[in-house]
Amino acid sequence: MLTLELGKSKNIPLYQQIYQYIKQEVLTHRLKAGSRLPSKRALAAQLGISTITVENAYGQLMSEGYIYAKLKSGYYVSALENLAPPAPMASAVSKTAQCISSPKGTGIDLSSNSILPQSFPFSIWSRLLRRTMAEKQSLLLTKSPTAGILPLRQAIASHLMSFRGMPVSPAQIIVGAGTEYLYELLIKLIGRDKLYCVEDPGYQKLQHIYRDNGACCISLPIDHKGISVSALGSVACDVLHISPSHHFPTGIITPVSRRYELLAWAASEQRYIIEDDYDTEFRLVGKPIPSLFSIDMSSKVIYMNTFSKSLASTIRISYMVLPQPLLEEFNRRFNYLSSTVSTFEQYTLASFIEQGYFERHINRMRNSYKKLRQLLLRALTSHPEHNRIEILQQASGLYFLLKIHTRLPDAALEDRLRQNGIHLQALQHFYQNRQAAPKHTFVVNYSSITPNDIQKVTDALFKSLK
Amino acid sequence: MLTLELGKSKNIPLYQQIYQYIKQEVLTHRLKAGSRLPSKRALAAQLGISTITVENAYGQLMSEGYIYAKLKSGYYVSALENLAPPAPMASAVSKTAQCISSPKGTGIDLSSNSILPQSFPFSIWSRLLRRTMAEKQSLLLTKSPTAGILPLRQAIASHLMSFRGMPVSPAQIIVGAGTEYLYELLIKLIGRDKLYCVEDPGYQKLQHIYRDNGACCISLPIDHKGISVSALGSVACDVLHISPSHHFPTGIITPVSRRYELLAWAASEQRYIIEDDYDTEFRLVGKPIPSLFSIDMSSKVIYMNTFSKSLASTIRISYMVLPQPLLEEFNRRFNYLSSTVSTFEQYTLASFIEQGYFERHINRMRNSYKKLRQLLLRALTSHPEHNRIEILQQASGLYFLLKIHTRLPDAALEDRLRQNGIHLQALQHFYQNRQAAPKHTFVVNYSSITPNDIQKVTDALFKSLK
Repeated sequence: MLTLELGKSKNIPLYQQIYQYIKQEVLTHRLKAGSRLPSKRALAAQLGISTITVENAYGQLMSEGYIYAKLKSGYYVSALENLAPPAPMASAVSKTAQCISSPKGTGIDLSSNSILPQSFPFSIWSRLLRRTMAEKQSLLLTKSPTAGILPLRQAIASHLMSFRGMPVSPAQIIVGAGTEYLYELLIKLIGRDKLYCVEDPGYQKLQHIYRDNGACCISLPIDHKGISVSALGSVACDVLHISPSHHFPTGIITPVSRRYELLAWAASEQRYIIEDDYDTEFRLVGKPIPSLFSIDMSSKVIYMNTFSKSLASTIRISYMVLPQPLLEEFNRRFNYLSSTVSTFEQYTLASFIEQGYFERHINRMRNSYKKLRQLLLRALTSHPEHNRIEILQQASGLYFLLKIHTRLPDAALEDRLRQNGIHLQALQHFYQNRQAAPKHTFVVNYSSITPNDIQKVTDALFKSLK
Repeated sequence: MLTLELGKSKNIPLYQQIYQYIKQEVLTHRLKAGSRLPSKRALAAQLGISTITVENAYGQLMSEGYIYAKLKSGYYVSALENLAPPAPMASAVSKTAQCISSPKGTGIDLSSNSILPQSFPFSIWSRLLRRTMAEKQSLLLTKSPTAGILPLRQAIASHLMSFRGMPVSPAQIIVGAGTEYLYELLIKLIGRDKLYCVEDPGYQKLQHIYRDNGACCISLPIDHKGISVSALGSVACDVLHISPSHHFPTGIITPVSRRYELLAWAASEQRYIIEDDYDTEFRLVGKPIPSLFSIDMSSKVIYMNTFSKSLASTIRISYMVLPQPLLEEFNRRFNYLSSTVSTFEQYTLASFIEQGYFERHINRMRNSYKKLRQLLLRALTSHPEHNRIEILQQASGLYFLLKIHTRLPDAALEDRLRQNGIHLQALQHFYQNRQAAPKHTFVVNYSSITPNDIQKVTDALFKSLK
C-alpha cells in the first residue's frame, strides 16, 4: 500500500504530489519493478480525491516510463533499465487503446506494423547516406522546396510509373513527414468546413486527425465492396477517405464498377476522394489493381502513399499526388511552408530509388513476406485442432484475418493470448460501431515476426483455445 | 513574342495550354535561358484571357523550375541545368515576397538565414550516424513516442540546463519536424477559437500559419521594449507569440520589468505566451537573458527552440517545452500522433549533444560569426563614405540593421543592390503596417557569407549609393 500523505496547503498540485511520491518510490526501489500499483479508483478513494487526479499522475508517470499499464489488468512499476519504453506501435488502434496498450518487448507482437531490423537495408542505406554527405554538402544545406526536393519527386514519379502505371508529373508530388502530416495539409487545402467520411471498420486514428484539425468527420459502414454511393448519399459527404485497393483491416478490394460509381459521385460536385494506397507494394497475390487516381478524369482524386511499409515507418517519409487544380491552389497558398523532411534523408531516398535499390528491396521483402505468410498459414491449418480456426482474406498483404470458433468473449481471448505470450487484436477494435463487428475474429499482422516464431505463435494460439 | 494559339475547344484548360506551350519552348531551347517572358498582363491582353489564367500557368512553370521571377522585374527562362531551383530561403519574408524572390546562386545573399556548407560538422555527423546505424538497428526501427525519443529529450533537457539555466524535465519536451509543425500542434492543443497575437514587425509567416490553421491572428505594434500590456489590452488577446530575448528583425531585448508585466497579464486568465527563443545560442554580446519560461510561476509560458540556426535548417528538428497542465493535456489528447522526425536523425542528434559535440559546435560557430561580424562591420565603417551608413542594433545575433542615408526609395535601392550583386531586404518587408517602418533601413543576415565576400559586399553597397 502506498503511504502517501497529500498536503493541500503545499501549493503543489495534488496530481504532482502523487507523481513525485511514486517516482521517488520507483527510483529508490521501494516500489519493485513489476509490482502492481493500486487501481486509480482505489487510490483515489484511499486519498479522498478524484480519480481524474490519480489518472493525471499515472499518465505522467507512464509518459515518463516509470510505470506501465497492462490492458484490463492495471498499472505496474517499470524496470528502471527500461525507462524509455517505446510508444505503442499498433498504428490502427484507437486513442484509448493506444494509451493503455501493454509495453512491447514481452511476447510476440502480432498487433504491430513494425518491421524487423534484418528487413531494413542498413548497409546500402548507410553507404548512400555517406555518399550523399560527401558529395552533396551544399545541396544538403539548401532549403528544400515545400513539396520536397525535385530529385526525390522525380524518383517517386518514375516509381509510380513503373510500379503502378501512373503517369504523374514530379510537380504533382508533395513529400511530407508521414501520412498524418499530409492529411493535415490536405485539411488546410480542402477546407475545415467540409464533411470528411472514413471507412468503418478502418483506422480509427483518422477520425481523431480530422477532428483535431477542426474538420467534421464521420465513419460510414462498408459493404463487401467498400463504401457505397448510397451510404455517401445518406450524409452530405464532401471528402471521402478510402483505401480501395486493400481495405484495412478487412482486406476488401473495391471492384472497378464500384470505383466508377465513386468517381461519378466525386465528379458531379465540389467533392474529393483521398485514396490511401498504403501497402500497394505488398500485394502478394493476384494482379495489381489500377489506382483510382489513374482512372480519374475529373481531377478529384488525391493519391497517398508512404515509405512506412515499404522501407521503415521510423524514417518519416510519405507523399501525396495532387490533381492539377488542387496543386495550383497548394502552390499558391502553401509555398511559404517549410518541408518537414530532412534533406539528408530526402537525397538518400532519392538515390535509393533512382539506383534501383528500392525496387529490389520491395521484391526481396515481398518474397520474404510471402514465404513467411505461407509458413504461418501452413502451421495454423495443419495443426491437429485446425478446425477450431478459419483464415479469412487470404489475398491480403501483410496481415490476414483469423476467425476462431470459440465461446470466449474477444477480450478474454486477447487476455489469454497475452498470457501465453502473443499480442493479437480483435477485429472489433477497428469498428466505430462495435456491434457490427464479426465476433471472434482477429487481425494478424505478421510483418514483425520471424519463421522461428511460428511454432510459438501456433502453440500459444491453440493453447489459448483450451 | 510568344506565338501561341489557344484552342478553346480543346478540352484542355487554358492555363495548361499556356504552360505546355512555354514548357515546350524552354525544353527545345526556342526560348533561351535568361530571356524575359511577357508580363502576365501583356500576355493576357495578347491572348484575350484573364491575367489569373496566365498567373496560374506561370505559377506552375515556376514551381517546376522552367521559369523564375525577379522582384519588380518580371519572369525569365531558367537555364535547363538549373531545373531544380531551391525554394526561396529567407525565413521571414511574406508569402508574396517568398513566391517571387529571385533565384539564389547569383550574387551574395544577405537576405537568407542559411548556413555555409563548411559550417556543418559533416564528418562528426557522418561518424555518429554510422555508429547509430551499426549499434541501434532495433531501436531505429522502433516507433518513436509522439514527443520524440527519450535520449534526445534528455539531451535537450541537459543542454537547456547547462546553456540556459532552465531546469526542465525531458517529459516536458516535444520534438517535431520544424517550428512550424510545432506551432500547428500548439494551435490544436490551445484551440482554434483563441486570438493569437504576434509582433509587428516580425516574421510575417507566423500570421499565415495561424490563419491557415483556422485560428484568428493579428499583429500588434511593438515599442522599444517589445509588445506592451496596453497593446494587449486593446484587443482580447488569448495567446501572445513573442521572441523576448532577441526580437526579429529589430534585435530588441525585452527587459525584465516588461517580462514580468507580460507574465502578470498571462497569469490572470486563460492565457498563454509562446516564447520563441530561436537564436539564443548566437547571442554574441552581453550576458544571457533568463528565458520567460524560467521565471514563469504560473505555467503559462511555452518555450520553443530549434536546431535550424544552431545546426542546420535542413535537418528538420525543433522542440518545445510545455508547462505541466498543457503537457498533461497534450499527452492525453495527442498520444496517438506519430512523431514527425526520423529516428535515425533523432538518435544521431542525441549522441551529438550527449557527447559534447553540440556545445563545441555552437562555440565554434559563435566565434566564427563574431569574427565575421567584426570584419564586416569594420569594412563598412572604415569605408571612405562610411558617413552615408549607420549600424543599428549592434548587440544582436546573426543579423544587424543597416540604416542608409539616401533619398532613394527602398525598393529602388534593393534593385540597385541586386544589380550590383547583393540581395538585401528592407526592414519594411517585416512590417504589417508598412507606414510604421523606418525608411532606408535594411536587415543584414550575414550567416551565409564568408570573409572573402566582405570586400564585394562593401563595394557593392557603396556603389549602389552613388
